[in-house]
Amino acid sequence: MSEFTPARLEILHAAAECFMEQGFHATSIDVVARRMGATKGRVYHHYPSKVDLFFDVHRLGMDLLFSAVEPARHAPGDALEVLAAMMKAHALAMFEHHAFESVVVQGVQLHRFGALTPRQHQELEALIATRDQFEALFKEQASAARRAKLLANVDVSIAVKTLLGGLQWSLIWYRPEIDDSAKNRERLAEAMVRTLLLGLAARA
Amino acid sequence: MSEFTPARLEILHAAAECFMEQGFHATSIDVVARRMGATKGRVYHHYPSKVDLFFDVHRLGMDLLFSAVEPARHAPGDALEVLAAMMKAHALAMFEHHAFESVVVQGVQLHRFGALTPRQHQELEALIATRDQFEALFKEQASAARRAKLLANVDVSIAVKTLLGGLQWSLIWYRPEIDDSAKNRERLAEAMVRTLLLGLAARA
Repeated sequence: MSEFTPARLEILHAAAECFMEQGFHATSIDVVARRMGATKGRVYHHYPSKVDLFFDVHRLGMDLLFSAVEPARHAPGDALEVLAAMMKAHALAMFEHHAFESVVVQGVQLHRFGALTPRQHQELEALIATRDQFEALFKEQASAARRAKLLANVDVSIAVKTLLGGLQWSLIWYRPEIDDSAKNRERLAEAMVRTLLLGLAARA
Repeated sequence: MSEFTPARLEILHAAAECFMEQGFHATSIDVVARRMGATKGRVYHHYPSKVDLFFDVHRLGMDLLFSAVEPARHAPGDALEVLAAMMKAHALAMFEHHAFESVVVQGVQLHRFGALTPRQHQELEALIATRDQFEALFKEQASAARRAKLLANVDVSIAVKTLLGGLQWSLIWYRPEIDDSAKNRERLAEAMVRTLLLGLAARA
């Protein structure tokens, strides 16, 4: 909905951390302003309510995932190597934008809470549609790999949900304060992609 | 902490649904009592606070996972087939106890919120330790598969986190109201396990 101007980006970064650490319900515009060392007025100037702020954090979180994965779609190699590059880019983006992506996950759960105005509900539907588009990128690539006879005999839809789950669950166990070197992130991302692509079972 | 008496189980089932649908913050003892068509007093008689109620839902959620996976540890077959049986049992338990397992996931997030008394913090630590023990079951089995030369060349710790993520993420996309036939659950569980064990890439 809104443009990500520098003034807004500063607010969104602070808000993402507050939402991640305290959850949606315990966070307020006041809490976000304090985190920034700013007045409440400065936040309200850009975001009329906490829900609007949450939705923009969610929207930026999705933008960051698309920005990471889109270039990988043009990686060199066969359809499976491209899928691997997309998965790795996704994993690295989850590590790099830990706070934003934690909020993206909260967004799904929030959907269940139900206490939204009709306009906010509509915005949430749009965000969920974006999530479906993101999943569709991986489904398309997995289907391309299938056409090239590079894919195992799996149900593409369930396999893609499973692989995205394997990558996205890292939000739960990844600790940015411990694992924040670029080298360590590479290692974790590659290990996850390897497990998902090649499986746990030894290959003959 | 508490025994799961029939009276408590009734409360815990209602509470799991409320926590799942509305989240921790929007749920109250009053909401849970209304869901049961009971008085608040009946709930307070067993649970002095919402946090205590939440922790017991979490504890039962973990118990249900252990009860599902423990028998699978003695499934017939080699170490990898046993791992597959454990994964399938885990997946089916996530479907069957959807509300409780959603709360187990919220529990992790809650850990970040911080607003707990020292006693409650201690209880949360105990619950988290139980989660680690659960993960350890899968690590042990994967290590047994490695010793039997049945495992791919993966980092066991990251591979287990990835496989548990692939299974547990089904909480996000599984819709009990659509997919609730036993046959459909079997199909979903087997497709997830197959993807994780054999990988997305075709085997030569």
